[in-house]
Amino acid sequence: MNKTESLTMVRRYILDHLYKYRQSETIYQASRYSIEAGGKGLRPMLLFTVLDALAVDRDKGLSAAAALEMIHTYSLIHDDLPAMDNDDLRRGKPTNHVVFGEATAILAGDNLLNESYKVISNDDNLSFETRIKLINELASASGQAGMISGQMFDIEAENKTISLSELERIHQYKTGALIRASVSLATIVANASEKLKEKLIDFSMVIGVLFQIKDDILDIEGKPEETGKNTGSDEKKGKVTYVSELGLNGAKLELEKKEKNAYKILTELDHDIDTSGLREIVAMFADRTQ
Amino acid sequence: MNKTESLTMVRRYILDHLYKYRQSETIYQASRYSIEAGGKGLRPMLLFTVLDALAVDRDKGLSAAAALEMIHTYSLIHDDLPAMDNDDLRRGKPTNHVVFGEATAILAGDNLLNESYKVISNDDNLSFETRIKLINELASASGQAGMISGQMFDIEAENKTISLSELERIHQYKTGALIRASVSLATIVANASEKLKEKLIDFSMVIGVLFQIKDDILDIEGKPEETGKNTGSDEKKGKVTYVSELGLNGAKLELEKKEKNAYKILTELDHDIDTSGLREIVAMFADRTQ
Repeated sequence: MNKTESLTMVRRYILDHLYKYRQSETIYQASRYSIEAGGKGLRPMLLFTVLDALAVDRDKGLSAAAALEMIHTYSLIHDDLPAMDNDDLRRGKPTNHVVFGEATAILAGDNLLNESYKVISNDDNLSFETRIKLINELASASGQAGMISGQMFDIEAENKTISLSELERIHQYKTGALIRASVSLATIVANASEKLKEKLIDFSMVIGVLFQIKDDILDIEGKPEETGKNTGSDEKKGKVTYVSELGLNGAKLELEKKEKNAYKILTELDHDIDTSGLREIVAMFADRTQ
Repeated sequence: MNKTESLTMVRRYILDHLYKYRQSETIYQASRYSIEAGGKGLRPMLLFTVLDALAVDRDKGLSAAAALEMIHTYSLIHDDLPAMDNDDLRRGKPTNHVVFGEATAILAGDNLLNESYKVISNDDNLSFETRIKLINELASASGQAGMISGQMFDIEAENKTISLSELERIHQYKTGALIRASVSLATIVANASEKLKEKLIDFSMVIGVLFQIKDDILDIEGKPEETGKNTGSDEKKGKVTYVSELGLNGAKLELEKKEKNAYKILTELDHDIDTSGLREIVAMFADRTQ
């Protein structure tokens, strides 16, 4: 199964779930809109690639991948709201509240968050214990111990001077927590050893930062027709980014450093698992144009 | 353990959880504010009372009660937002966004929803199977199959003429789903028989409607110093209520009808369980002044 097929399967899984339990047609359509808006699906892809490396069937990680994508999508819907980032364009399409109105967008976001837990709890291909571990790990990554605190840190840092280490900390929470969870959920599904789990999580934290540096570079250098976002929007909002802190060249050097670090960890893992797919992920994160 | 003690214990349980896993101080304070604002705690109370009736220790239901209260509180924070009901007073105190700003209120609501699932997944006094059943049932009550669709139906019905049966349907989802879950979560914790579970859920659906009728009556007749809400706010917003549909006296008659129906179900249950606490709940729902 290739990348596109896996991603199509995750979206289909989410849409089937949303359709099956729908009551309000508006909630269903608004939730579906943002799932279909079609992001890059990096989190499901990362989870599946770790499962490949651990020689576990991708099907076993389907509900976890769906939940990750649903939580990522809900966070984007709420982030885009006028009271938050006030973005009207996302993935090249009008944002949820632009199409459905603010009240519906708030509820559609709430819905995707809530249903992500239902998706995992429903998955009777996994033992009760595995499901609870997945839910616990996902809730830790998404809630106040992870992403939500990151979103708050990010808002609080706007138009302030912060250090590079403070910036790293924000991203470790805001985007890093869910990227880390993409890896740790896979290790839970695969029932991987503690040693492997630790190494893979180290890896996830490096590529989490790498991902963010690239994001900041693309905000300056990216083509709106590829990124689906307006160029220079971070600067306009007075956001602190790797580019604003290190300059464009400094950010590129930092990206290279993280890339090397990621490959170094994978080389250490080569004794135990097949890291070829994970190497492709590093290249994909570093070289992406969208 | 009496009513106030149990409720204090649930709030303490929630606050301990929020404190333990806090990262952003702002998220912690904003989440805490709404938990401490101190509602009536009807959902935890109902859950505990069903556990009493089933002769199961209240401690076993603590995480489920906490999760119910957290989800109820998150829904109020989001409902009060300017883009939703735009309420600045709740439980006699300024609403979350009035104190912390809209962005923080959105995130604090997201946080309480997310952490509610973590609270249950963390509870190792319960088997993995029980935890998964609780999470599944709670997610069904809170998400698009329940409360969230109800919130959407409610918004869509504003300033429209709808029938009494349509109004009942809205409330079955909006407030009924979580009241029903208060009972069904207790039956899961207690591992009650299917027969008992069915009867108790019938009961929960009747008192769910009863609760809503009383709410609509209090919106007209309640004292702001007791209800903590401005009087007549439903009418101002053009909301369809039992009072707008049936008139004040008609609503009171309907309340009496539901009250009788609730007692009838309890009488049928008298052979199997001690319904005295549940009878008190009916009286409390029907006679409350706040």
